[in-house]
Amino acid sequence: MSSHEVSRFGHVDLDGLPPDLAERIGAIAERSGFVPNVFRALGRRPRELRAFLDYHDALMEPADDGAGLSRAERELVVVATSGANHCTYCVVAHGAVLRIRAKDPEIADRVATNPYAVELPERERAIVDLALLVARDSEGLTDADLDTARAAGLSDDEIWDVGAITALFAMSNRLAHLTALRPNPEFFLMGRQPRA
Amino acid sequence: MSSHEVSRFGHVDLDGLPPDLAERIGAIAERSGFVPNVFRALGRRPRELRAFLDYHDALMEPADDGAGLSRAERELVVVATSGANHCTYCVVAHGAVLRIRAKDPEIADRVATNPYAVELPERERAIVDLALLVARDSEGLTDADLDTARAAGLSDDEIWDVGAITALFAMSNRLAHLTALRPNPEFFLMGRQPRA
Amino acid sequence: MSSHEVSRFGHVDLDGLPPDLAERIGAIAERSGFVPNVFRALGRRPRELRAFLDYHDALMEPADDGAGLSRAERELVVVATSGANHCTYCVVAHGAVLRIRAKDPEIADRVATNPYAVELPERERAIVDLALLVARDSEGLTDADLDTARAAGLSDDEIWDVGAITALFAMSNRLAHLTALRPNPEFFLMGRQPRA
Amino acid sequence: MSSHEVSRFGHVDLDGLPPDLAERIGAIAERSGFVPNVFRALGRRPRELRAFLDYHDALMEPADDGAGLSRAERELVVVATSGANHCTYCVVAHGAVLRIRAKDPEIADRVATNPYAVELPERERAIVDLALLVARDSEGLTDADLDTARAAGLSDDEIWDVGAITALFAMSNRLAHLTALRPNPEFFLMGRQPRA
Amino acid sequence: MSSHEVSRFGHVDLDGLPPDLAERIGAIAERSGFVPNVFRALGRRPRELRAFLDYHDALMEPADDGAGLSRAERELVVVATSGANHCTYCVVAHGAVLRIRAKDPEIADRVATNPYAVELPERERAIVDLALLVARDSEGLTDADLDTARAAGLSDDEIWDVGAITALFAMSNRLAHLTALRPNPEFFLMGRQPRA
Amino acid sequence: MSSHEVSRFGHVDLDGLPPDLAERIGAIAERSGFVPNVFRALGRRPRELRAFLDYHDALMEPADDGAGLSRAERELVVVATSGANHCTYCVVAHGAVLRIRAKDPEIADRVATNPYAVELPERERAIVDLALLVARDSEGLTDADLDTARAAGLSDDEIWDVGAITALFAMSNRLAHLTALRPNPEFFLMGRQPRA
Repeated sequence: MSSHEVSRFGHVDLDGLPPDLAERIGAIAERSGFVPNVFRALGRRPRELRAFLDYHDALMEPADDGAGLSRAERELVVVATSGANHCTYCVVAHGAVLRIRAKDPEIADRVATNPYAVELPERERAIVDLALLVARDSEGLTDADLDTARAAGLSDDEIWDVGAITALFAMSNRLAHLTALRPNPEFFLMGRQPRA
Repeated sequence: MSSHEVSRFGHVDLDGLPPDLAERIGAIAERSGFVPNVFRALGRRPRELRAFLDYHDALMEPADDGAGLSRAERELVVVATSGANHCTYCVVAHGAVLRIRAKDPEIADRVATNPYAVELPERERAIVDLALLVARDSEGLTDADLDTARAAGLSDDEIWDVGAITALFAMSNRLAHLTALRPNPEFFLMGRQPRA
Repeated sequence: MSSHEVSRFGHVDLDGLPPDLAERIGAIAERSGFVPNVFRALGRRPRELRAFLDYHDALMEPADDGAGLSRAERELVVVATSGANHCTYCVVAHGAVLRIRAKDPEIADRVATNPYAVELPERERAIVDLALLVARDSEGLTDADLDTARAAGLSDDEIWDVGAITALFAMSNRLAHLTALRPNPEFFLMGRQPRA
Repeated sequence: MSSHEVSRFGHVDLDGLPPDLAERIGAIAERSGFVPNVFRALGRRPRELRAFLDYHDALMEPADDGAGLSRAERELVVVATSGANHCTYCVVAHGAVLRIRAKDPEIADRVATNPYAVELPERERAIVDLALLVARDSEGLTDADLDTARAAGLSDDEIWDVGAITALFAMSNRLAHLTALRPNPEFFLMGRQPRA
Repeated sequence: MSSHEVSRFGHVDLDGLPPDLAERIGAIAERSGFVPNVFRALGRRPRELRAFLDYHDALMEPADDGAGLSRAERELVVVATSGANHCTYCVVAHGAVLRIRAKDPEIADRVATNPYAVELPERERAIVDLALLVARDSEGLTDADLDTARAAGLSDDEIWDVGAITALFAMSNRLAHLTALRPNPEFFLMGRQPRA
Repeated sequence: MSSHEVSRFGHVDLDGLPPDLAERIGAIAERSGFVPNVFRALGRRPRELRAFLDYHDALMEPADDGAGLSRAERELVVVATSGANHCTYCVVAHGAVLRIRAKDPEIADRVATNPYAVELPERERAIVDLALLVARDSEGLTDADLDTARAAGLSDDEIWDVGAITALFAMSNRLAHLTALRPNPEFFLMGRQPRA
C-alpha cells in the first residue's frame, strides 16, 4: 500500500553506516530486536544522524540524579505532541515505548488521538498542556503559561524538559513527514499485551 | 486515570434498556463479546439511541446488491475523519473494525494519525480526501471537488456514501466528545494479531 | 443563478417516496404549506431519511413533561451552529422557525451572522457558547466547560440537549453542503413581519 | 435583549453633528427614511466620520463613465466579505441594498451565510473569490491570484475595485465589532418583498 | 528581485497628481526627504487617496488637547497589527516611525515579529492585546475584552483609538497586499542608529 | 522594557561553560565580536548545547564539494520559517546573516515579514514555498509537493536540506519561545549599511 518500506528518500542499513554509528545503532537494535526505521532513514546523512542521537539521548534519558521528568513523562510529551502534529512514525514508535514505560496498554492511543482533552492526573495534564502550547502556539507563550505549569508543581528544570522535548520532536515530526517515514511493523503491537 | 468508565454522564446497561433496544444491542454484544460503550452511554436517551442505530445501519451496511462503498471503505471513512476530529472512541472502536475488514494490522493507526498524507491506493486516497473535505471544510465544498472524486472513479452514490458517513460521524464524534466516551478495553487489541 | 433547484444530486417529490415517508412528510407539508427541500433531497435514500426524521424529532421536540430546552432554545442552537458552519439551508429554514418561536424578527440574522459575540440574555448566551464549542472545537471540550454551563443554570439534561442538537446539525449541515441544498423560497420571509 | 440600541459607545443624533455632517447624513436619511446607525455611532468622532463617508462614496459609487464594477457587484463584495467576517451590521444593512440592487430577495442571505461555495455566475464567482482572498488571506495574495481574476474577465480597475472595497469593509467590519453596532430594524425587511 | 519598484499596478509621481494632492504629499516628502511609496501607489485613484490621507491624519495625530494615545502608542498599534497581518510595507515604514517616536532601535523588530508575546510595559501590552483581538478575531470581541483593557487603565477614548487605528490598518495592510507595495529603501535604516 | 537580558531562565557566560564549549563558543564570539545569546541561554544544559551546535553545523555549512543549498539559501530558509513562526531571536540574528550573505540590506525584513508572498527569483521562491509547508503544514506534505520543488530545479539533496533546516529551526524557534530569548543588540544593525 506504499511505494517504499522506510523513507521516500531510501534508507541505509547498519552495514552501510560509518563504524561509530553502526556500533551505536547496533546496540539499540540488539535491545529492540530490530533497527528502528528513523535511524535507517537518517543514515543518509551520518553527521545529522549523530547530532540527532546526541540530542535525543540528552533529552530522553533522565539525569543520573533522577531530577526532572520521569522516563514515562518524557514519552508522554513525545506522544502527545506527535499526535497533535499527526506524525505516524513518532506516535507508533514512541507510543510503544510509552505503553511499556507507563505499563498501560491504552495510554498511547488515548493521548495521541486526543491530547487536548484526554483525562490525566493533574501533573500529567499540566505537562501535556504545556507541551501542546509549545508544539502548536509557541509564539504566544508567556510567563503566565509557565506560572500555570509551576502551580501544578513543575520545577523550572521540568518545564525546560517539557519545552525542549517538545521542540526536539517538532523537529523529528517534520523529518518524519519530510521522509514519509514508516514505522517498523514491530512497534504496532509492542506493550499492548500482558507479559506472559 | 479517569473519573468514569464509560461516559461523564453515566451509562445504562443492557438490563436497563427498553426491550427492543436490549434485544438489538444484545445481539451486537453476542457477536462482539461485549457491549460497545457508545450504546451504554446513549442508552440514557432511548429514542435518540434508536435513531442512532438506524442511521448507523443505513450507512455502514452495504446495500444487498453490493452497490456503493465496500465495508472496509466505509470503515476507512470513519477512521480517517474520526482521526481528523480527534475522537478517541471512534478511532479505537472503528479502528478495530477496519483492521479486521481490511485484514491489515497497521492501517487504522496510519490512517487515524495522519489521514492527510497517509499513502493509499488511488481510489482509497480519493475517498479519504473527499471525506476530509466534508469533515473539516464542508462550507467550501464545490462541484469541482466532486469532479475530482468522480475522476478517481467514484460514482455519485459512492460520493453520497462518503459524504453521508462523514456527516454521521461528525455527529458521533461530537457525541463522544460531549460524553467523554471511553473505548471498551477490548477494542485496543482487536485485529492486531494474525489469527492462530 | 444556480444549476439546480433543490440538490446537486436531484430530488424526490412526495409521490416518489415510500408510503410511510410520503405520509409523514405530507403531514409536515400540510402544516408548512410546502415540502421543505431537505426532505426532497434526502428522499433519494429513504432508509437514511427515516433515521434523519426520527433523530430530528427526538431532539427538536421537548419531552411531554416540558423538561430540557424550550423549543425556541433548541432552534437557537441550530441557528447559531449552522451560522458558524456556514450552512445556508439550515440558517434560512431554521432561522424562519426561530423567528416564529422567539417572536423576534431580528434574532435569526443576528445569531447566524455572528454567534460568537451576539448579545443575548445570560442563559441563552451560555447555551450558544457551549454549542459553539461542540460545533467547532469539540476535541477540546473538558469538564470545566460543562461546569461553566452549569454555573449559568443549565442542568445535565439541558447540556445533553445542547450538545446533541449541535451534533445532529453537524451532520445536517454537512449533508446540506454535500448536496448543495437550496432553501425553499418561502423560508426567507417567514416570521419577519407582524401578523395581521 | 441588548444593553444599547446603536453602539456600545453611545451615539450622536443628527442634531448633535457638525452642520456639514448633519446636512450630508440628513440627505441620506431623507432617501432611506431613517439615519443608518453606523453614522450615529461614528458621529462620536466627526473627523473620522467625514473620512469614512468620503472613502465610502469614492468606492461604492461607480464612476460617471460607468467603468468598473456595477453597483450590485460592489454590494456583492461587501456582503460576501462582511459575511466571512461575521459582521452583523454590514450584512444586514448592505444585504438590504444588495437585494434591491440585484432585484433578488435571496441573494444576500445566500452570499452572506456561505460566500465560499454559493453558486454564482462565473464573473460574480470570480469577484467573490478574489474578495475572500483579500478579506481573509491577503498576506498570501500573489500575481497568480490576480491572473485567475483576469481570466474570468476582470480588468485591472475592476480588480482594484474588488480589493479596495474589501479593504474598506475590513475596516468597517472591525469598527462595527468595536462598537457592537446594531442594525436599524428597518434594514431586516428591505428588499425582501415584491413591490406592490 | 522584483518586477516593479512601487506597486504591481504602477504608480503616479508627484507631478502626475492633482494639485491639492501634489501639495499635500509634497509637504510630506519635504519632511521625509522622499515620497513614501504608499502615496505613489494610491495616486492612481486621487479620490481614494484623499480619503486615505484624511482618515490617516484623523487617527494618527493626537488631538490638540493631548487626549488619547500618544504618537508612539499609535505607531505601536500599527506595527503590532501590521506584523500580525504580515504587511511588509507597513511594518517597514511605520516601524521606522515607531523607532523614532519611541527612541528605541529594537522596538519595531521585536513588536512586528512577535506581537503576541513581546514583553512590554503593562499599558503597552494591554494596547497590543486589544489591537490583536480587533485585527485577527474581531468577530469575537465582547464587553469583557474591553473591560480587560479598562482594567489596564485605558479610557474609552483610548480604546476607540486602538480599535479604529487597527481597523484603518486592516484596510491599509490589505491595500498594500493588493498592490504588492514595496517599502522605499530609506525606511529600512531610519531610526536604527544613534543620531550623531 | 524586559525583565531579563538574555533568557527567562537566566544564562551562562563563556567562563561558566565546560572547556570544550567555552572554546567552541569562544571561537564564534571572536568572529562575531560578541557571544550570541542563544549559546548563553542553552549553556544551562551543556549536553543539549553540544548537540545543538553539532546539528546546526551539519546543516548550515555546505558540504566541502559545494553540493546542496548555498549559504545564503540556507539562511533564507531560516529567516522565512522563523518569520512564519514569529521567532524574534532567529529573525533578528539570522536576518543579519542573511543580509550579509545575500549582500542585500532589504531581504531579511521582506522575507521575515511576509514569507508567503515576497517576490523572489523562481528557485528561491520554490525553496521558501517548500520550507513553509514543512514549517506550518508538514502533516499534509505529499510526493506532489516534492515534485513541485523538483520542477523548480531542486535536487533531492537540496529538498532534504530545505526540509531538515526547517525542521531544525522548528526546534530552535520553540527553544527561543520557551526561553523568551532576546537578540543581542548588535544583530539589529548588521548588514544594513554599505561597507565603507
